[in-house]
Amino acid sequence: MEQTTNNSQIDYKSHYFDWAATSPADSDILQKAVELTLKDWGNPSSTHQVGKNARTLLEQARDRAAKALGVPSSTVYFTSGGTESDQIPLLAQLAKPSTGTILISSIEHPAVREQALALKKCGWNIVQLASDKNGIITPEVVTQALTSDTTLVCIMAVNNETGVIQPIYEIAEAITKWSSGKRKPKLHVDCVQAAGKINLNLAHPGIDSAALSSHKICGPRGIGILYVKDQFDVFLRGGGQEKGIRSGTENVLGAVAFSLALERYYNKDNSTQKETTDDFVKKLSGLKGCTIVPTGRLENPDLFSPYVVQASFEHIPGNVMLRALDSQGFYISTGSACSSKKNKRPVLEAMHITPQISENAVRFSFGPHTTAQAINELFDAVAKVNSQFNK
Amino acid sequence: MEQTTNNSQIDYKSHYFDWAATSPADSDILQKAVELTLKDWGNPSSTHQVGKNARTLLEQARDRAAKALGVPSSTVYFTSGGTESDQIPLLAQLAKPSTGTILISSIEHPAVREQALALKKCGWNIVQLASDKNGIITPEVVTQALTSDTTLVCIMAVNNETGVIQPIYEIAEAITKWSSGKRKPKLHVDCVQAAGKINLNLAHPGIDSAALSSHKICGPRGIGILYVKDQFDVFLRGGGQEKGIRSGTENVLGAVAFSLALERYYNKDNSTQKETTDDFVKKLSGLKGCTIVPTGRLENPDLFSPYVVQASFEHIPGNVMLRALDSQGFYISTGSACSSKKNKRPVLEAMHITPQISENAVRFSFGPHTTAQAINELFDAVAKVNSQFNK
Repeated sequence: MEQTTNNSQIDYKSHYFDWAATSPADSDILQKAVELTLKDWGNPSSTHQVGKNARTLLEQARDRAAKALGVPSSTVYFTSGGTESDQIPLLAQLAKPSTGTILISSIEHPAVREQALALKKCGWNIVQLASDKNGIITPEVVTQALTSDTTLVCIMAVNNETGVIQPIYEIAEAITKWSSGKRKPKLHVDCVQAAGKINLNLAHPGIDSAALSSHKICGPRGIGILYVKDQFDVFLRGGGQEKGIRSGTENVLGAVAFSLALERYYNKDNSTQKETTDDFVKKLSGLKGCTIVPTGRLENPDLFSPYVVQASFEHIPGNVMLRALDSQGFYISTGSACSSKKNKRPVLEAMHITPQISENAVRFSFGPHTTAQAINELFDAVAKVNSQFNK
Repeated sequence: MEQTTNNSQIDYKSHYFDWAATSPADSDILQKAVELTLKDWGNPSSTHQVGKNARTLLEQARDRAAKALGVPSSTVYFTSGGTESDQIPLLAQLAKPSTGTILISSIEHPAVREQALALKKCGWNIVQLASDKNGIITPEVVTQALTSDTTLVCIMAVNNETGVIQPIYEIAEAITKWSSGKRKPKLHVDCVQAAGKINLNLAHPGIDSAALSSHKICGPRGIGILYVKDQFDVFLRGGGQEKGIRSGTENVLGAVAFSLALERYYNKDNSTQKETTDDFVKKLSGLKGCTIVPTGRLENPDLFSPYVVQASFEHIPGNVMLRALDSQGFYISTGSACSSKKNKRPVLEAMHITPQISENAVRFSFGPHTTAQAINELFDAVAKVNSQFNK
């Protein structure tokens, strides 16, 4: 096997501020999962002892994940990641006898937005719900858009670019109330940026499904969870694993690692991070030419995840700020990693952020291993770059 | 973290004969991939240095896999596994402006068969091609079924239950010839049971796409490859990773490990295994009440993969044979692991195998670490169980 070498002398983890893109896997969690699955490596669907041992390991992982999430084990389905966990409920609509309407927020991740728009080709009506200036979808906006043929509503819990928190519980309740006496449209919640970052109760009445991703909270890539309150008929088919919700031989290594990461990080207290982030946002807003995106964050910091901050710097295109910081070993992003090559910012566009602010916007995102000191150092580095462009 | 304990004193790897269900990951390959990705753990789509390092690792894995497969790197797309690699080209049909016909062999894995049948709900015409008594789909059967609205043909390279090898190159050529002057229907080949088991040239003219799975050849679960000769418009959407063919943050660990497994096992000489297996089949056929499935294998051993053998034992239901061997530490299967809970054998049914033979059929499958001695011991164990039921 050939060796890979590159310049890894930089202290990545301390000056990495792109946790919304991915997180480093916790080494002990990954090694533990490797160790357990090198021992019990069977196919959980095999009926012999090797298979049964793997099944035990998988179900222990499911139980552990369910316990961390506060939901029954029977509602936890392992998938290949956040994208697939979003695709399954969307594509499930194609298994219905007739077409209808799907509502999505205008600031969804492309895993929801692009997949929903693809369903148009199959005759589905896709309605994008407008957000207020903070990027929030109000329960009223949702219920006003509901129609008798609405089968699914998709609202993400925390936006991956601005960190805005949606009023998911209120939306769930509003949909339930609207549906009194009628068939309730399903509510799917993309929780990829919320899990392990803000307090989240998937079992809240009215939430029908939710998507989670392991690699956003220090688990490995290639594993996610789809929470499903009541089983539904799916369109993606195959060997019928995961009770038919997600076909494909079960990734036990990933399931074990993700369950351990959830146990460690899900719904952990985030008040210290909140203090640090709110302070960082205030300091940023004091820099000449800096605009917090959206500006409403300054008055309403509680509406935002303390793990994602977006800001725009006058005279400094986002990719210029990114490269200037990169060269000093500070790693941030413009928008999401998924859209890094597209130069489009549909989320900011939907929030009516001006093109100028949008082009200069960058994202700072944090994780469980980010220290207050590192954020202070980040602020100093940003301030220095900013002063060079805004003299 | 809690410890998992179960009875793992059995020498799994030497008496495991269910490699078609899954293989144990090669420990050195898995550990190497873990080591490399714990070091370069970024999101390959991130544009900062952490992302670039991860991108380098991913592209090295792609190059390594492509070299092993003998195809250009640009045709190798990493997916979450064999099922997804089969689903992507099938679902891509939904991105077309109008519906049409899809031909599938009647003995496909459910990842193809069930997904194709699901497309009926979207107005697609699904035609299942009949096999001959050996389970072979002839080029003539394919071309006779082709119509002007046929957009896709799916034929698996090696069947997962019987090991029969399809004449993929001849089918590819026949479709190309039939299409002269017309738009050629795409040919998708499920190579999950073929890769690393028989000689396979994906670059053969007329093959448009192919599915491969890592965990069938000593790589980890949760990673696969979709070979795509010419890029196509897809229906599964999201962040647009893997040039839009497979959205979702790239599983670099899995990609590295799979590429190393391909380097080690793809198109390796299988003549020793062939000798051992042909001998095993002959010996089995001499047992009282044993029927090789299909019986034609005895006269035409070269039509079958030396890594999968199916046999039926009079008076012994398949699950009884499985349990009898299981209790002695020999691990086999009835049918595929995917269908282990369904008690249905659509593949055997399609081959017109009688219900009695079908119910008593079991599968012995081998891998690169299976020894001739272990297969001899398996034969002795099978013969002993058989003699208890056929005195």
